[in-house]
Amino acid sequence: MLAPAGASLLTLETPRLILDLDRLEKNCSRMRARCEVLGVALRPHLKTAKSVDVARVATDGAGAITVSTLKEAEHFATASYRDILYAATIVPGKFVHAARIMAMGCDLVLVTDSPAVVADASSFATEQKITLSFLIEIDCGEHRSGLAAGSAEIVALARAIHAAPGLRLRGVMTHAGHSYGPSDPADVVAIAAAERDAAVNAATAIRAAGLPCEIVSVGSTPTVLYADHLHGVTEVRAGIYMLWDLAQLSRHVCRIEDIAVSVLASVIGHNRAGRALILDAGALALSKDIGANKYLPDAGYGYVCDVHTRERLGKLSVDVVHQEHGTVAVDDESWFEKLPVGTLVRVLPNHACITCAAYEAFDAVRGDAVVARFARVNGW
Amino acid sequence: MLAPAGASLLTLETPRLILDLDRLEKNCSRMRARCEVLGVALRPHLKTAKSVDVARVATDGAGAITVSTLKEAEHFATASYRDILYAATIVPGKFVHAARIMAMGCDLVLVTDSPAVVADASSFATEQKITLSFLIEIDCGEHRSGLAAGSAEIVALARAIHAAPGLRLRGVMTHAGHSYGPSDPADVVAIAAAERDAAVNAATAIRAAGLPCEIVSVGSTPTVLYADHLHGVTEVRAGIYMLWDLAQLSRHVCRIEDIAVSVLASVIGHNRAGRALILDAGALALSKDIGANKYLPDAGYGYVCDVHTRERLGKLSVDVVHQEHGTVAVDDESWFEKLPVGTLVRVLPNHACITCAAYEAFDAVRGDAVVARFARVNGW
Repeated sequence: MLAPAGASLLTLETPRLILDLDRLEKNCSRMRARCEVLGVALRPHLKTAKSVDVARVATDGAGAITVSTLKEAEHFATASYRDILYAATIVPGKFVHAARIMAMGCDLVLVTDSPAVVADASSFATEQKITLSFLIEIDCGEHRSGLAAGSAEIVALARAIHAAPGLRLRGVMTHAGHSYGPSDPADVVAIAAAERDAAVNAATAIRAAGLPCEIVSVGSTPTVLYADHLHGVTEVRAGIYMLWDLAQLSRHVCRIEDIAVSVLASVIGHNRAGRALILDAGALALSKDIGANKYLPDAGYGYVCDVHTRERLGKLSVDVVHQEHGTVAVDDESWFEKLPVGTLVRVLPNHACITCAAYEAFDAVRGDAVVARFARVNGW
Repeated sequence: MLAPAGASLLTLETPRLILDLDRLEKNCSRMRARCEVLGVALRPHLKTAKSVDVARVATDGAGAITVSTLKEAEHFATASYRDILYAATIVPGKFVHAARIMAMGCDLVLVTDSPAVVADASSFATEQKITLSFLIEIDCGEHRSGLAAGSAEIVALARAIHAAPGLRLRGVMTHAGHSYGPSDPADVVAIAAAERDAAVNAATAIRAAGLPCEIVSVGSTPTVLYADHLHGVTEVRAGIYMLWDLAQLSRHVCRIEDIAVSVLASVIGHNRAGRALILDAGALALSKDIGANKYLPDAGYGYVCDVHTRERLGKLSVDVVHQEHGTVAVDDESWFEKLPVGTLVRVLPNHACITCAAYEAFDAVRGDAVVARFARVNGW
């Protein structure tokens, strides 16, 4: 059930997704300050928060944003966002949806690395009498998608887009997804340099061919924070910095006291024989992502924290998950007295992007007071 | 976007959750026939399907069902289901919600293993002038929750419930969740026997103490299918049998051609250098559950199948997932010609309970024709 505004979070029915507004605001301020130092525009990625209310904090209004699905794009366009980058490569089956979003007055920027898609996009755009904007995706080392940095294919695709009726070449983008891999900041500095160089060199080559390249877009939270400089880059995309999680903590990209999101859960059982507490937060409420555990082996499926202080309870983690049950191993019997059945705890997520996707909304709090409910846009 | 009824699934915007109605119906018929042979009532668990339309097929109307959340209970009660077992132990913070569902005319049966919760429930029920129904949860060997099979605590808790004003003792329940562990059917037969004995012996002890025990509830899909008999059991709970998945395939509990649910995805990129296809189905569209992989190491995050024949494409699996990207390693270049960018594929889920939770609805198909959209009730 919903809590009346101003109610204590103790009145919420669990599990619930809790957003600490003070931390969110600090996280967003820090990233803005960082981008000012770097001299680049910030195009926040809303794939983690998926919330207009969070976007308002991240953008101070309705500035440029990044999204991971067209459903997100449509949701934000409905909320007056007018400059939206859909950061996954589009396929022809999604052109109609993209056109619908553009018809809302939105500058929707698309991404491609495929000559075949460019040809289809041109046919669609001319038929519909619209102009589709494209960035070319460059692979800066993650080796997931995009044209290889430095390859001749980049300028060739740029020429194809520029020459194609109904299409507009806007620039290039790359994403150093592998920046989430290392735990040593020195490695991230190198990855950030490679990401920047891949994008800037591609832009230089495209411009040298006499083609436009207005947008040079890079980013991931770690590379934005660790880049030694971003000369030549016009904008950065980053998202997890708004909320943070144990995966980022494990890579030393944030501090535990920066984590703005947690799952409010109830102790629903005591397994005394098995020396475990049972929570009503399991595989669905927390996700099965254990990306933090490589460098933070005790992360489990999340740290179990005091509901008020938000500090970790001893060394407690959610160790095993079933669909609606989370099992927390305890080292001594005293936990059964300290945390009776019915006790509320907060669980810090292993990977916030995945955990949050299970919830239709954040319960936004200041201290223990629930001050708002922020709707999220999940699915496709 | 939604497809008009009767449209081909080729018109759907991906990713989407596809439900093969012919397979669903066969799966439900088989389980009903199995329960008739066993002589037990079937109380289908809707935690996987979370859909009234699927429940209609599983129950032939609005019969007794099992749910995993109170949100599900409320959703099904709204759709005229009147006999609902909420199969996770309840805590006092959820009593108000439970009472609201009961006020809809629903016989909502609750579960507990805690004397403290029983005391609180009695206070709540007397205050609200209602009667709360309880089953006692027994631990039959999974060692997650419930009172140990054979322990004196069972009859003691039964006495406490029976004696408590406002409460009604309805019986016992147990869940052999560990039946999903082994891949050898002989092990499942033994687990099914232990599950049955734990419940039946508890019921016998409760009745011997002069207390009522109308419901003796056991179940998981594997134990229902493999039990040598279920004498003394009054009802079984099972859910995954409606849809099936690779986790069940890996334990030889279903055949691949029984799997009724798949994720419709598009090839959104060719990574020729990395010899991989990129799909628009990643960690959110498929989940990060890899429960199948212990016995089916090539399951990855799902088998990649032909959209029409539903047969697996070579040995293709989704090998790596990021939030909205799934990477499919290919053994030779011919796959790039066979599956151009834009091609639709179906991905069979590793663990359907978790995969389905990312979708607000199933697109129900017969053959390639989309015949309905079945809403799901996710979250809490």
